[in-house]
Amino acid sequence: MTNSKVGHRIEELTTPAFLLDLVKVKSNCQGMLETCKAMGVSLRAQTKTHKTVEGAVLQTGGSRKGIVTSTIDECEFYADHGFDDILYGYPLIAHHMPRISALTRRLEKFHVMVDSKLAVETLIASQPPTGKTWSVFLKVDCGNNRAGVWWEDEESIILAHQLGSYSSLITFRGLYVHCGNSYYAKTDVEVEKVRDENIERLLNFVDRVKERGVTCETIGIGSTPSCKKPSDNMKKLDELHPGNYVFLDVQQSTLGSCIVDEIACRVATRIIGHYPKRNQMLIDCGFTGLTKQGEGMLVTGYGIIRDNPNLKICNMTQEIGYIEPLKGKLDFEKYPVGSLLFIFPWHSCATAAMHSVYYVIEEDKVVAEWKPTRGW
Amino acid sequence: MTNSKVGHRIEELTTPAFLLDLVKVKSNCQGMLETCKAMGVSLRAQTKTHKTVEGAVLQTGGSRKGIVTSTIDECEFYADHGFDDILYGYPLIAHHMPRISALTRRLEKFHVMVDSKLAVETLIASQPPTGKTWSVFLKVDCGNNRAGVWWEDEESIILAHQLGSYSSLITFRGLYVHCGNSYYAKTDVEVEKVRDENIERLLNFVDRVKERGVTCETIGIGSTPSCKKPSDNMKKLDELHPGNYVFLDVQQSTLGSCIVDEIACRVATRIIGHYPKRNQMLIDCGFTGLTKQGEGMLVTGYGIIRDNPNLKICNMTQEIGYIEPLKGKLDFEKYPVGSLLFIFPWHSCATAAMHSVYYVIEEDKVVAEWKPTRGW
Repeated sequence: MTNSKVGHRIEELTTPAFLLDLVKVKSNCQGMLETCKAMGVSLRAQTKTHKTVEGAVLQTGGSRKGIVTSTIDECEFYADHGFDDILYGYPLIAHHMPRISALTRRLEKFHVMVDSKLAVETLIASQPPTGKTWSVFLKVDCGNNRAGVWWEDEESIILAHQLGSYSSLITFRGLYVHCGNSYYAKTDVEVEKVRDENIERLLNFVDRVKERGVTCETIGIGSTPSCKKPSDNMKKLDELHPGNYVFLDVQQSTLGSCIVDEIACRVATRIIGHYPKRNQMLIDCGFTGLTKQGEGMLVTGYGIIRDNPNLKICNMTQEIGYIEPLKGKLDFEKYPVGSLLFIFPWHSCATAAMHSVYYVIEEDKVVAEWKPTRGW
Repeated sequence: MTNSKVGHRIEELTTPAFLLDLVKVKSNCQGMLETCKAMGVSLRAQTKTHKTVEGAVLQTGGSRKGIVTSTIDECEFYADHGFDDILYGYPLIAHHMPRISALTRRLEKFHVMVDSKLAVETLIASQPPTGKTWSVFLKVDCGNNRAGVWWEDEESIILAHQLGSYSSLITFRGLYVHCGNSYYAKTDVEVEKVRDENIERLLNFVDRVKERGVTCETIGIGSTPSCKKPSDNMKKLDELHPGNYVFLDVQQSTLGSCIVDEIACRVATRIIGHYPKRNQMLIDCGFTGLTKQGEGMLVTGYGIIRDNPNLKICNMTQEIGYIEPLKGKLDFEKYPVGSLLFIFPWHSCATAAMHSVYYVIEEDKVVAEWKPTRGW
């Protein structure tokens, strides 16, 4: 089914279908731009949640400049669509060097991220394209415990100093911190604590690097939970790089990033069967339409069904979901076979990745189809 | 990156990459054909695990006849590629009727599956294409507790009788049972018990339908765990319809369907960082390359890393996986950054769905690329 659905009503779509509420997507994007402007910091938006041209245009306020990506495929996709000032926000390995070199050649500003001495050695083993240098951010781990040099270590400071010293090969841009540990927080207050700790450690690192005579032109932190909570200490940064805020999801609502009503995406699904003896009904959204992420996190199962707080997605197989009431008997007359339900996903980055087309909705009609890039 | 990788060595592939061992895929397909032949039953192979032309050609022994699919998109995809005798193995709803009608028109044999009185009413509300009848299987639930009419119920018998009575509109083909409850078994013996119970109930249902003077031309059961355990009572059936056996996976190995060495698919991933202080390394396979299915099921995390029984995939974010040893200190020299690991997935149906190309491997070289259909 490759025919465009633009102009169709939601009821006409084949399900499961990934829907975007355009008003909410725009509002989420505009809100983050305003948050950053008010604090005097730039927004280098992460594109991984949606991976679409249209989403990144909204994230950059139409400039198509200043994004960070999660795959080199995304870098190439955005370069193909007129974007520039792209940071490949992923640990650099030798295998990607030919593509990194090509992107460095074709874009005005293409940046890579190094997270170790080995990554720096890998980079400088290749000559940058004529008239260019490798433009480099150092990834610093300020508590996330994933990739990056550890902020406390003396050897991390030495590495930053080295990056500032290879001027013929490398332009040292600054420091990149992902505070993904904000996702392990249980409350708003914990998210803020994680954010503040990351910023404090980053600023400490900057000071120690400065003592060696190296300037960090751009320093920034990311993650939607932290960036949705503006604070005075964020004004000391140059860039923020959240990504999920474009769609948001149920997980974000549990972290205080949003209320459920602000979630801009949902999966439309149809009821396909009634099973009164089991007090269950089946829907045509299985794990290929939603993913099984969020298992065990919600009383309502793998997501939240809009306007139906008593319904639980209790199980999923490949193409079928199982719905039960949280309590009482299911009112089957309220849910005819063929009728639609709308699921807010636990993790929109994961759910979006299951769909090759996003149906963009305004007032119950499809106004656009956005097609994400995919792969690596 | 749309360039073909045929002829390349595995080491040249961008990772994560979904690899198929062609010898094993062929052996798995040939084995199931032989199992069925030896029992005198047909194989109506389920295509949902791979969704490729090439896989279904192997499943049908080259005939391109006799498959069952999980989505109507698959039906259209296979019809476009010269397949016939296709069963759309999904509960029938009104929304799909135009596409069902088109497939009934264009194919010699296209079958649908009904699971309720409402589905039958939905079907006969439409006139079949000229010169055709709706070709229908009744889905019977013999213990799986998903879709289908319950085997014990008198109204289920009445429905079968009705299906046999609408001869101008409907050709009643027979009964379809999916014994997906075999996946909840803990041991081989339990899988066999589930299989036997499903068959016994199905045969009981057939007898009761016969008493009403209705013949079930074709009766069959599915699920890879049950079909991988041939038995005398299966000879009483006409068709089997397993699907996962083409690739197999770690889950199947825990159900006694295979040994790990028979798993025909794996995800190639590169090591992207060493973190000795955390006794961890990172890989470039996150949940978009593997999925988080299998959470909590294995001591080795979200899969099994080939030839490395001491390694555990302990966490995954979108594009990054975390590897730890089950015990002791990780020998980082053994795992240089940039080197490859190969992950057998917990659930290959889910993992395959994350990849738009499967790299088919023979002796460490890519010999073909298979491209699955996707969507609904």
